[in-house]
Amino acid sequence: MSSHIQRKVAVVGASGYSGEELLRLLGSHPSVQVVAVTSRQHPGRQIGEVLPQFRGHPTLGKSVFIDSQVDQIVASGAEFVFLALPHGLAAEFAEPLLEAGLRVLDLSADFRLRDAAIFEEFYGVKHPSPHLLTKAVYGLPEVRRSEIADARLVACPGCYPTSILLPLIPLLRKKLIEPGSIVANSLSGVSGAGRKASIDLLFAECNESVRAYGLPGHRHLSEIEQELSLAAGTALRINFAPHLIPINRGILTTIHAAPKDDLTLELLTKTFQEAYAQEPFIRLLGPDGFPDVKYVARTNFIDIAWRLDPRTGRVILLSAEDNLVKGAAGQAIQNFNLLAQLPETTGLL
Amino acid sequence: MSSHIQRKVAVVGASGYSGEELLRLLGSHPSVQVVAVTSRQHPGRQIGEVLPQFRGHPTLGKSVFIDSQVDQIVASGAEFVFLALPHGLAAEFAEPLLEAGLRVLDLSADFRLRDAAIFEEFYGVKHPSPHLLTKAVYGLPEVRRSEIADARLVACPGCYPTSILLPLIPLLRKKLIEPGSIVANSLSGVSGAGRKASIDLLFAECNESVRAYGLPGHRHLSEIEQELSLAAGTALRINFAPHLIPINRGILTTIHAAPKDDLTLELLTKTFQEAYAQEPFIRLLGPDGFPDVKYVARTNFIDIAWRLDPRTGRVILLSAEDNLVKGAAGQAIQNFNLLAQLPETTGLL
Amino acid sequence: MSSHIQRKVAVVGASGYSGEELLRLLGSHPSVQVVAVTSRQHPGRQIGEVLPQFRGHPTLGKSVFIDSQVDQIVASGAEFVFLALPHGLAAEFAEPLLEAGLRVLDLSADFRLRDAAIFEEFYGVKHPSPHLLTKAVYGLPEVRRSEIADARLVACPGCYPTSILLPLIPLLRKKLIEPGSIVANSLSGVSGAGRKASIDLLFAECNESVRAYGLPGHRHLSEIEQELSLAAGTALRINFAPHLIPINRGILTTIHAAPKDDLTLELLTKTFQEAYAQEPFIRLLGPDGFPDVKYVARTNFIDIAWRLDPRTGRVILLSAEDNLVKGAAGQAIQNFNLLAQLPETTGLL
Amino acid sequence: MSSHIQRKVAVVGASGYSGEELLRLLGSHPSVQVVAVTSRQHPGRQIGEVLPQFRGHPTLGKSVFIDSQVDQIVASGAEFVFLALPHGLAAEFAEPLLEAGLRVLDLSADFRLRDAAIFEEFYGVKHPSPHLLTKAVYGLPEVRRSEIADARLVACPGCYPTSILLPLIPLLRKKLIEPGSIVANSLSGVSGAGRKASIDLLFAECNESVRAYGLPGHRHLSEIEQELSLAAGTALRINFAPHLIPINRGILTTIHAAPKDDLTLELLTKTFQEAYAQEPFIRLLGPDGFPDVKYVARTNFIDIAWRLDPRTGRVILLSAEDNLVKGAAGQAIQNFNLLAQLPETTGLL
Repeated sequence: MSSHIQRKVAVVGASGYSGEELLRLLGSHPSVQVVAVTSRQHPGRQIGEVLPQFRGHPTLGKSVFIDSQVDQIVASGAEFVFLALPHGLAAEFAEPLLEAGLRVLDLSADFRLRDAAIFEEFYGVKHPSPHLLTKAVYGLPEVRRSEIADARLVACPGCYPTSILLPLIPLLRKKLIEPGSIVANSLSGVSGAGRKASIDLLFAECNESVRAYGLPGHRHLSEIEQELSLAAGTALRINFAPHLIPINRGILTTIHAAPKDDLTLELLTKTFQEAYAQEPFIRLLGPDGFPDVKYVARTNFIDIAWRLDPRTGRVILLSAEDNLVKGAAGQAIQNFNLLAQLPETTGLL
Repeated sequence: MSSHIQRKVAVVGASGYSGEELLRLLGSHPSVQVVAVTSRQHPGRQIGEVLPQFRGHPTLGKSVFIDSQVDQIVASGAEFVFLALPHGLAAEFAEPLLEAGLRVLDLSADFRLRDAAIFEEFYGVKHPSPHLLTKAVYGLPEVRRSEIADARLVACPGCYPTSILLPLIPLLRKKLIEPGSIVANSLSGVSGAGRKASIDLLFAECNESVRAYGLPGHRHLSEIEQELSLAAGTALRINFAPHLIPINRGILTTIHAAPKDDLTLELLTKTFQEAYAQEPFIRLLGPDGFPDVKYVARTNFIDIAWRLDPRTGRVILLSAEDNLVKGAAGQAIQNFNLLAQLPETTGLL
Repeated sequence: MSSHIQRKVAVVGASGYSGEELLRLLGSHPSVQVVAVTSRQHPGRQIGEVLPQFRGHPTLGKSVFIDSQVDQIVASGAEFVFLALPHGLAAEFAEPLLEAGLRVLDLSADFRLRDAAIFEEFYGVKHPSPHLLTKAVYGLPEVRRSEIADARLVACPGCYPTSILLPLIPLLRKKLIEPGSIVANSLSGVSGAGRKASIDLLFAECNESVRAYGLPGHRHLSEIEQELSLAAGTALRINFAPHLIPINRGILTTIHAAPKDDLTLELLTKTFQEAYAQEPFIRLLGPDGFPDVKYVARTNFIDIAWRLDPRTGRVILLSAEDNLVKGAAGQAIQNFNLLAQLPETTGLL
Repeated sequence: MSSHIQRKVAVVGASGYSGEELLRLLGSHPSVQVVAVTSRQHPGRQIGEVLPQFRGHPTLGKSVFIDSQVDQIVASGAEFVFLALPHGLAAEFAEPLLEAGLRVLDLSADFRLRDAAIFEEFYGVKHPSPHLLTKAVYGLPEVRRSEIADARLVACPGCYPTSILLPLIPLLRKKLIEPGSIVANSLSGVSGAGRKASIDLLFAECNESVRAYGLPGHRHLSEIEQELSLAAGTALRINFAPHLIPINRGILTTIHAAPKDDLTLELLTKTFQEAYAQEPFIRLLGPDGFPDVKYVARTNFIDIAWRLDPRTGRVILLSAEDNLVKGAAGQAIQNFNLLAQLPETTGLL
C-alpha cells in the first residue's frame, strides 16, 4: 500500500507493557517491517495468542515469538532493534547487536547516564558496558535531534524524566529560573511499574489508593539531573516526588520553581513558543491550560501549560503524557524515525 | 444500651456527600440522638429511601427528612446543629440558629476566615454575616482544642486545609522551615467536588484521567494561609496545587519546604512526636512511612510522614486523610464531642 | 499520501462520545475527507479546542464546528453523512439530507425498526418519518452486507444489540437453539449512557458500584427481537438484562440458551466457523476462550466464545466489543466502506 | 464500657482479605475479646504494622500476630475460632481445634459439602477429614438458624453462593419456579480472588477490563446445587457464570428462571415478604428496586429485588452483597453471634 522502503526492525522483550506498546505502534507504522519479536517466556507462540489484542492483526497476529537470542535477532535481517528489557539485561543485548552492525534503540536505563559511577550509585550494580556510555545518545528528540539521527545507540528517556525535562529545559537554557529551586511532583499510572506479579500492584491494592513512593531518591533522578544540569550549564539537584495513582496509563507532572528576578508571564510564554511551537509532539496549552492524561493517552503528544503565580512569584509548570508512548515506545519510534531518515511523525500521528 | 445522656443534634443539608457521611457517623455515635435531618430536595421522604445505604438502619432508616427551615430545626429540640450546606447558604442558617440558642458546627467555608475582605477576595461575594467572623472558632482540634470547647460557632476546616495545616503547623511554630518556601501538592478524590450534575465529574470523564485545577488561586488558600501565618507568627504565602484523581475518597498531600539552617531529621521527628504523639487521630508514620489514602478511608485518622532530603536539604511532608471524614464530617464530630464535653474520640474510633 | 479518491463525509453531532469516536476513526481513514462537523453547542469553535485530544491533529485539529443546519451540511459537498444524534432528532436530519441526495449513516435508534408501532411502544413517541423505515437497512455488515452496499439510509445497530445478535444469529438460522430460551446478560461501560450531566453517572456514584437497570423492558429489546426473529424465522422474545459497570468503554455479553436436541460442541464450533471464519472483525475464541473488553477496546473487533455445558446441557455464548467502536462508530464506518465501495476494513484495521 | 461477658475469639489467617475484614468487624464487636490472631507470614509483628489501617486501633493496633500453631491458639484461651485459610488448609486446623473443645467458624470451602465425593470432584483432592462433613452445619443463618446455634463446626457459605441461595431458596421451597431452569450471572469485585500475587489480578490488567471466568464448572456450583436441591426437595443443576469486574468489593447477581404455571407478581412479592421481612440483614427492594453493591459495601446486608417479566414470563431476581462481609466475614460473625447466644445483629448493625 505504501511505496516507502520498509525498514526491518526487531523488538526484544515484547511481553512487557512497553514492548506491547511498541508492537501496537510498529504494527501500523507504514515504513516498518517487523522481522523479529522475542520473548523469553513465550518463544514459539503466536503473538496473537500471548497478547490477545493482536489476534487478527494483519501482520503481527500470527507472527511467532522467537527466543531472546542475539544470533536469532541478527539472522532476522533487522537493521534496527528496540530493546524493551529490564535494566541490566538490556546492556547484555546491546553490545553484541551493535557489534553485529544493528542500530539499537534501548528503552531501559542502561545507557541513559554518561557516568558509570552515577549509574552504580543509583542502580546499585556496576555498569556492564561502561565504554558504551559515551557512545550512546540520550534520545530526547526535541533537545538532541541531530545527534540522535547519527547515533548507533539511542538511550530512550524514562517516562518520568520526559515529563519533567521537556517543560524545564527551555527555561534553564535561558536561565529564567533558579537551578536549585525545582520541585517536581509526578503522578503515574500503574503500568509504569511494569507487568510484574507483585502484591502492591494488585487491583484491590491500587484501586481507591494513592501514595508517594521512592522518596527521596528515585532512580530517575540521575538522568533528570544529568540533563537539567546540561541545560542549565551548571550542576543542579531537584526534588522529585513520584506518586502511584489508579489509572492504567499516563503521567501528570506539576513543577514549581523560583524565577530569576525579571521573569514575566509574557517572557515565559514566548520562551515556550520559541522552543516548541514547531514541535509536532509538544502541544502548548498556554498560561490557562490544564493538561490531562486522558487527552494524551495512546498518543505521542506531551501537553504543557504554565503559570507565573502572582501571589508567590513562583513558576508553575504542568505536563501530561502517556507513560507508555511519549514516555517509552512512542518516543523510541520518534527516535527510530530520525535514525531511519523518515519524517519524524511517521506512524505516530 | 448506653448510660450516656443523648445529645440532641440536627443535620442541615444531608443529601450531599458530607451530609451523608455525617449521618453515617452520627447514626452510630453512642451519645447522639439525631432529632432533625433536613433536605431541600427531599422533604417528607424517608432517609432510607433517598440514601439507600441507610435502609434498615435501626434509627435513621425510617426517619423522615424535614424541610430546611430554621423554625422546624429549632422546634426539633436540637441543641447542636451541623450545617452541610454550600458556601453562602450556611451563613443564612447559622445566624438565626445561633440566636435561637443552638450551637453550630458549620462545614462550609462561611466562617473560616477572620477577615471579611479576604472572604470577598476569594469567594467573590460580600460576606453575609461579617460580625460573626470573630466569634467563630476555626475547628482544628489538634491546634485549638480549648477554644473549640467553649465556642458557639465552629467553622470546620476544609478538606485540603486539614491535610496541609496539620503537617506544617508544628514546624512553623518552632520556626524550623522558611515560611516563604512552602509548596503543597494535593491529590483529591472526586467526592471532594460534591454531588453535582457536572459533565466534568462524570465517570467517563474522570476515570483514566488526572489533572490539576484551580491554579494558582484555589479558594482554600485563604484559610490555609490564615492558619499557617498564625502558626508562623508572620504573614506567609504558599503554593498550593490541587489535583483531581479517579478515586471516590481521600486526599494525599505532598509538601516541600526549605528548612531553617540547622534542622536535623532527629529534630524533625522529635517535633512531630512532641506535637502529636498523644493525638488520637494523628498517626505518625515517621521518616520512612508512606501515607496512603486507602488506610485512612472511612476513618478520622490523618497519617503523616516526613523526610529530610539529604541531596537537596529540603523537608518533605506527606499526609493522607479521608476528605469526607477528617476533612469534613469526622472532624466536625470531633469538634462536636469537644463542645458536648464528651471524650473526643466518641463515635469516631 | 494516498492515491485513493477521497470520499467527502460530514459528521452531525460530534460532541457526544459516539461522535468523538467517529472523528477519531475518520480522522485517520485513508479514503475520507471530513468536510463538515456540526455541533449545536459549539458552532464556530475549533474541534481541537472543544475536544482537546484532537489538538495537533493534522486535518481535524483546526477545523471548525459548523452549526447543525441541513443546508450548511449540504453546502459542504458531503456525499455521506454520519448522524450521531439523540433518538428522535436524527430523523429530522435524515429526511432532508436524503432528499438532498446524501447517503445517510444513522447511529441513533430512529431507523432500526421496521414497524413504527413497535418504535412507538418502546420509545414512547410517534415515529417522525415512518415512510423511511422500510427504506432503511439495519446495518449489521456480517448479516446484511449486500443490502447495505446499496442502501441510501443505514440504521447502524445499537451497542447492546450488536453484542447479542452476532453470537446468536448463526445458531438461530441453523435452528440449533430453542428460540424462546434465550437469556442475555450484558455489562456496559459508562460511556454507553452518553455524555450527559446526570447525578447517576458521576464518578463518585459509578465507581465501586455495579447495578442492573432498565429491567425488564430495555428499549434495545425491540431491535434485538426484530433481528433474532428474522434469523429464527419465527417471532421470539428474549430476556435481556443490561448492567452498568465502572469502565469507560466496552460491553461484555453472556448468553444462555437451551439447545435443540442433538446439538454437539463440534456442531456449535463448526457453525461459528462457517458463519464467521472469514469475517475481518469477528474473532472466534473457540470453546475455551474468555472474551475480555480490554482486548477489543478502541478496535472494531468483536470477540466471541462458546460452551456447551455438559452439566446442564445449555449453550453459553460470550462476546466482547467496544461499545463506541463495533457498537457504534466503527460499525458505522464499516457500513460506510460498503456504501463507498471501499475495502470493508479500510481505516479500521 | 459494656457489661456483656466478652467472648474470647481467635482469628487464624488474618492477612488475607477475609481475615482482615474479620479483624475490622471483631475489633468493634462489643461482646468479643480477640485473644489470638495468627499469620504464617508475619508472626511476631504488630497487626498495625502489617495492616496499616489498624494502626491506632484501641485494642488491635499493637496486638502481635502469633504463629499459626494449634497449641498456641488453644493456649490463648479462645472459645471460638475463625478460620480464614485457603481451602485444604482449614481442615488441618479444624480437627485438632474441635478436639481441644473450641467451636470453629470456617470461612473456607472445606466443610461446606456433605458429600466427600463431590468435594473431590470439584476441588480435585481427597477430603482430609470426611468424618467431619456430617457434623458441620452450612452456615446460612436465614435458612438454618437453630442448627447453627447448636453447631460446633460452622461452614460459612461462599460469597457467590450466598448471593444466589438467599434469593432462590424461598421460591424453590414453595415450588414457584422450575428447578431445572435457573441461570445465575454474578459479577464480583477483585478482592474475591484473594490477596495473591498473580499477573491476572494486577491493576493494569483488571482496570478497564471485564471478563467471565471458570465456565462452565466453577467450584462454588457444588455448594450452590447442594443447598438449592435441599430447598427444592429434588436434585437440580443450574448454570452459573461468574465475572470479574473492576471494583474492590461486592457481588451483584442476576438470576433468570422459569416460573411454575400460576406464579403472579403478587405471590412472588408475598413469598419474599413471608420469608424475609423479619430478617435483619436482608433488605427487600421489591419488584421495582435495583440492588447496587455500593449500598451494601462494608455492611452485612444483602439487597434483593425481583421481577416477573410480562413479555417472557420469566422470573428475574437481583441481589447485591459485599463479598467480604455478608459473603464472608460478616456472615461468619452472624453465625458466631448465634453460637454465642448473642443477639444476631451484635457488632454488625
